[in-house]
Order: sequence, then C-alpha cells, then structure tokens
Amino acid sequence: MGETKPVLPRRYHRLREVLNRRQKDLTVLLEDVHKPHNFSAIIRTCDAVGVFAAHGVYQHGDVPAFSETAKGSQKWVNIQTHSDLKTAVNDLKNQGFTLYATHLSENAIDYRTPDYTQPSCILFGAEKWGVSEEAVNLVDYNIYIPMFGMVESLNVSVAAAVILFEAQRQRLAAGYYEQSRLDPETYHRTLFRWAYP
Amino acid sequence: MGETKPVLPRRYHRLREVLNRRQKDLTVLLEDVHKPHNFSAIIRTCDAVGVFAAHGVYQHGDVPAFSETAKGSQKWVNIQTHSDLKTAVNDLKNQGFTLYATHLSENAIDYRTPDYTQPSCILFGAEKWGVSEEAVNLVDYNIYIPMFGMVESLNVSVAAAVILFEAQRQRLAAGYYEQSRLDPETYHRTLFRWAYP
Ligand SMILES: C[S@@+](CC[C@H](N)C(=O)[O-])C[C@H]1O[C@@H](n2cnc3c(N)ncnc32)[C@H](O)[C@@H]1O
Ligand SMILES: C[S@@+](CC[C@H](N)C(=O)[O-])C[C@H]1O[C@@H](n2cnc3c(N)ncnc32)[C@H](O)[C@@H]1O
Repeated sequence: MGETKPVLPRRYHRLREVLNRRQKDLTVLLEDVHKPHNFSAIIRTCDAVGVFAAHGVYQHGDVPAFSETAKGSQKWVNIQTHSDLKTAVNDLKNQGFTLYATHLSENAIDYRTPDYTQPSCILFGAEKWGVSEEAVNLVDYNIYIPMFGMVESLNVSVAAAVILFEAQRQRLAAGYYEQSRLDPETYHRTLFRWAYP
Repeated sequence: MGETKPVLPRRYHRLREVLNRRQKDLTVLLEDVHKPHNFSAIIRTCDAVGVFAAHGVYQHGDVPAFSETAKGSQKWVNIQTHSDLKTAVNDLKNQGFTLYATHLSENAIDYRTPDYTQPSCILFGAEKWGVSEEAVNLVDYNIYIPMFGMVESLNVSVAAAVILFEAQRQRLAAGYYEQSRLDPETYHRTLFRWAYP
C-alpha cells in the first residue's frame, strides 16, 4: 500500500558508499550479552568498522532491546539470532569463518596476533559470566586483550571495540575498504532494503 | 581510631604489580561525559591501560555517579575534576602534556599518528554535543578514529577504549610497563593509600 518514496541522490550516494565498505567476512557472535547499552554500543561499532551481519545467541534470556546508544545502527547491520550456540558455531564454521572466543585461558593468544583479513568471527561473552565453557570448546582460538590494572576484565562493548578496530586496521592496510567486496546479489538486495525500508 | 588491617602478602604483591605499571604521563580529560555507564566504562579502561589519574570538567552538570560498569576501578584511578576547561587545559599543559581533542575537523589527524609514548592527554566530549569549540581552540591537535558506517559517531566509551589501547600498544612496545615509571614519593604515597584505604 502507498508509494515508495524516492531516495534523494545524495542519500543514495551515501548508502552506496557505506555498502561498498561492508565486510561479509568479519562478524561477531554475542553470547547472552544482555545489557541494552552494551548490545547497542557493539552494533554501533560493527556499523563503524563495516560488519555486514552480527550474530547472537540468547539461551538465558531475550535478545536485548536497543537503547539510544545504538544511534540507529541496527538498521544498517543485519542481526541474526540463532537457537543455540552449537548451531550458530557450526553455521559460521560452514561459512568458512575462523572463530575466536575472547577468553583468558592458558593457551589464549594476544588479540593482535590473528590475521583478521581472513574470514573472522569474534565471540563475546555475557557481562557476568563471560564466554561459556561450551563456547570455549567449540571455537578455534581464544584471544585476550592485555590488561595492566586491578579490575579483572573490560566492559564487553569496550573489548569488542578494541578487537574490531584492530580488524579494521588490518583490513584498511589490505585495501578491503577501497571497493565493494560483496557479491552483486547481496549488494543489490541490501541496497534496495536500505533505500526503501 | 581503630587498627589498620594488615594486607595479605599476595594482595600487597598485586597492588605493587599494578602500581609498577601506572603511567603518570598518559591521561584523559572528560568534558561533560555525563552518562554513568560511559563515565564508568572509561575509568575502567583507564585502569586497564595503566592511567594513573583521569581528569574531568563538568560545567553543565554534576560529575556522574559510578555505575556497576566501573567494577570498582574508581578506587584505582585518581579522578581530578577542574572548575573549568581553561584551567584544566592550562594545568595539563604546564605539566608537559600534549593535548589531543577527539574531534572531526578539517585538520584532524588519524588517531594512530600521534606518539603516545610522549606525555599525552586525550580529550573526549559529551555524548550529545561532542567536544566544545572552546576545547578545540585550546588543544594542540584534533584526532579522529576512521569510521565506515552510516552512524556519524562512536559511543564515547568505545572511542576512549580504541585510542587508549593504541596508546597501550605503543607504550608496551616502548617497554613502559616493564618497571615502575613513578617517582618514589608518588609510588609510596599511592601504595599506602591503596593498601590502607
Ligand atoms: C565483563 S567480561 C566477563 C567477565 C567474567 N567474570 C569472566 O571471567 O569472563 C564480559 C566479556 O567482555 C569481553 N572481555 C572482557 N575483558 C576482556 C579482555 N581483556 N580481552 C578480551 N575480551 C574481554 C569478553 O567477551 C567477556 O566475555
Ligand atoms: C557521541 S560523540 C559526540 C557526537 C556529536 N554529535 C559530535 O558531532 O561531536 C561523543 C564523543 O565520543 C568521541 N568520539 C565519537 N566518535 C569518534 C571518532 N570517530 N573519533 C574520535 N572520537 C570519537 C568524541 O570524544 C566525542 O566527543
């Protein structure tokens, strides 16, 4: 019903500019990250580094609502929720992703070590409990951000930002933001959805 | 009144370990950053990268309370508030700091360009308004974090994390966390305050 509103040329140009930089092979998997401002800040960071789709598993509660902190980023980042962790991880592995859980274990590696120009999915844990043991056992690597203070962990949206901007740095150096890396079908389907919501 | 409780050796060792890594020449200046969870997350990040003291100017409201997000970091990072921006900036300049405002202006530079092993103070702006014009005119440089999305800015605690961890990276490479860089007086006064609060 009703007509689709025309998109102003400047707006259309901007949508394409952003879409040209979207990265289908960089993503996050949020495991019960449940505070609205953390969830929102992470999706906003995803938008800024060009994550095409973000993933969530909520086995211990509902998917959080977006707060004002999201600044509308939820319109520009696809959010895919999965019924359970195992399904999510297998799905992402089948798509060729290497999975990194942010978890301080004995064999965890510094977050600056991995090559994030390869298909990479970073898994973040719940505010209180962190990444589950199940997740730790399913992923390929554990990574951590070195800390030198008294507090034992970072805020989850802070940790996500630090790692995603390291990925952005690597992808910038590799020229990944210079021209579109999306297949034409995804590109045009998304452009249509963005332009005519 | 009352006895001071003895500090367990393990606790004492940990306090010293953290104090050994504190950096007096790396700080932030928060200009009306007023949401408790942002303020709290920034102080927690300061703790993690070893900021000794953080600065705030609140000319448009009260200093925010700490939320649960701070995880007690306010005990380990000195928080100094200033009556007004000009006083704060002059004070920091007199202490030898180079001031960087996070502000997207024509002559802003990429946040990875500065040498943060030199005395550095990063200025962050209010959630709604960003860094004030007054601040922009007072600082030495404007810096920005490159963004490739639809949303025009990052959450302030996210921006702080990205820049402070770049500073941490540079300081780690320079060996700044290997042995104490504090003068003996500051070291012992702080250790005493931490051990016998
Ligand atoms: C507040 S922490 C969880 C703390 C929990 N008590 C634990 O021990 O895991 C929430 C999430 O933030 C991320 N995180 C926090 N600190 C981190 C660090 N230093 N390196 C990497 N990720 C971190 C992880 O995703 C973690 O699951
Ligand atoms: C939400 S932003 C303020 C937005 C405001 N509308 C403006 O135009 O400045 C709050 C603060 O986060 C920091 N910030 C946000 N995005 C940033 C970026 N890309 N680079 C550096 N700092 C940023 C700055 O300190 C800014 O003042």
